[in-house]
Amino acid sequence: MVIALDAMGGDFAPLVPIKAAIKAKQSGVDVILVGNEKSITKHLLKEGVSTTMFKVVNADEVISMQEVIGAKTLKKNSSLRVCYELKKKGAASAVVSAGHSGAMLALGKMILKTINLIDRPCIGALMPSKKGHVLLADAGANIDCSADNLFQFGILAKIYLECVHNVNDPKLGLLNIGKEKSKGPAAIRDAYSLFEKSDINFLGNIEGKEFFLGDHDIVICDGFAGNILLKSTQGAEAFISYLVKEQIGKSWLNKLGALLLSGMFKGIKDHTNYAKYGGAPLLGLNGVAMVCHGNSNVEAIFSAIKIADWSIKNDFIKRIIEGLDFHYK
Amino acid sequence: MVIALDAMGGDFAPLVPIKAAIKAKQSGVDVILVGNEKSITKHLLKEGVSTTMFKVVNADEVISMQEVIGAKTLKKNSSLRVCYELKKKGAASAVVSAGHSGAMLALGKMILKTINLIDRPCIGALMPSKKGHVLLADAGANIDCSADNLFQFGILAKIYLECVHNVNDPKLGLLNIGKEKSKGPAAIRDAYSLFEKSDINFLGNIEGKEFFLGDHDIVICDGFAGNILLKSTQGAEAFISYLVKEQIGKSWLNKLGALLLSGMFKGIKDHTNYAKYGGAPLLGLNGVAMVCHGNSNVEAIFSAIKIADWSIKNDFIKRIIEGLDFHYK
Repeated sequence: MVIALDAMGGDFAPLVPIKAAIKAKQSGVDVILVGNEKSITKHLLKEGVSTTMFKVVNADEVISMQEVIGAKTLKKNSSLRVCYELKKKGAASAVVSAGHSGAMLALGKMILKTINLIDRPCIGALMPSKKGHVLLADAGANIDCSADNLFQFGILAKIYLECVHNVNDPKLGLLNIGKEKSKGPAAIRDAYSLFEKSDINFLGNIEGKEFFLGDHDIVICDGFAGNILLKSTQGAEAFISYLVKEQIGKSWLNKLGALLLSGMFKGIKDHTNYAKYGGAPLLGLNGVAMVCHGNSNVEAIFSAIKIADWSIKNDFIKRIIEGLDFHYK
Repeated sequence: MVIALDAMGGDFAPLVPIKAAIKAKQSGVDVILVGNEKSITKHLLKEGVSTTMFKVVNADEVISMQEVIGAKTLKKNSSLRVCYELKKKGAASAVVSAGHSGAMLALGKMILKTINLIDRPCIGALMPSKKGHVLLADAGANIDCSADNLFQFGILAKIYLECVHNVNDPKLGLLNIGKEKSKGPAAIRDAYSLFEKSDINFLGNIEGKEFFLGDHDIVICDGFAGNILLKSTQGAEAFISYLVKEQIGKSWLNKLGALLLSGMFKGIKDHTNYAKYGGAPLLGLNGVAMVCHGNSNVEAIFSAIKIADWSIKNDFIKRIIEGLDFHYK
């Protein structure tokens, strides 16, 4: 069992992925480093680590964060694509990257394919809430979705939380603009009926203002709404943080108050920091793949590697196949 | 010139609307109070105000906040409907209510109709940003929109900011999941082209995380996305505020720090408080109508009355008709 890590993916590659790999190795998880071999070797030596500690697979190209995804950009010898190829031929058990999430998704569909019965994979993003965490799916993979797509995201998210995060019978809500079953577009209304009829612990529609209350373990929506929710709440958090900083600078009294509360501010920042949550699973692919934010730190990528490892150990893909059989039997 | 105010609309009606009306009157804006006459008279006397200060129009029914909107709930003798009827027959120049926003919209379309060339009215919500304010339209009226709808929302929002809020050549962005023109659903891609070809100061797509940066005066989206953005960012703000309170309670040092920063926390709360922005215009109706949050305080309803008054004084509806002529000529 070994995780293929895209050593060239992310804003701070290859240093941050390599450091995360070292940490993973120290915690007992085996990692293959995929990317420019020279650069990887140089960084390993810099970190004082023997180059024999990791298997390194050379890949000379990188899909940069700015590229618009198309046939041309999904380069054959890119570190990300080589990761997937290793998984496909059985040389790795999972893929982790902090690279281009669109490319990660496109290559995943192309190389690993989706699990039988699943039309489209989705991105599951674990976010903080008052009572712990909430998994948002789809967080950005599919801009418009049918009721069936949304229902499938629900099954995938439920099994992910049960199998990988040990959540018992997760409570699921459907993101909408009102509580009533009659609200919102047809796809959501029809998905409501599908969830209602299923054995999923379905709490009905959830409005945006309730998202962080923690009454739900899973919130299902299409990738457009999910992206808007994810990004705009990150923007709101950054805005409040900006207002706080601006105000603190205005007086000595405020500066003193802020000094006393510095632990608190750090605590809140940590709690609301996506990086801590370590990467989002691409749910529905026929293989474990975790995408991390480009901005990820060592802790975040390490955490994604651990979750990938844990997913494999818990037979996540097999559990999904069984779950789909159950729901579609 | 007189504003028809729904005295029964909102969570704190009739007290809060009546107090707002008194404040408006003192600032020189005339208001008709619409609702249960007995109750209104009682509250006016309680406030030590002569009952001759306002014209009161009796309306015995109320559309409650919980009602699902349909033909039956848009009651003929409801305070909100009577407000619109007063406007229609020329006895009032604008309508303001903190009541049911769905009913406000449905009755507005039914009684006032939309302005010629406008297919659907939208809700414009003014929100705080780093550099001042940003107008979100549609904030929740239309769950799915064509490119034409989105373009029309843009024209309406532009004229509203220019005419009522004195913003010069407002900068407009289209809410999307990426910056590129090729991103997102067809309606948004087509709206992009329409804005590009227009004389509107169009900055292209804007992502959720940029919403509060203040680089845009207007952000256009359908009412589904708008509602999700509005509500989920309010939820995020409440979540952060909860985390702060929770942490402060944990130690004496934190309590002391919070005491020193209490002015700051209040300032930020005020700045991010929707109530201060005093109500959202229903843009595209053939008449000025402002809907306030059900939770509005006196200041918010007063502010909505002032904006309605200002809209009338600046010939807002006439300016829209001219603007549409220009854009569709």
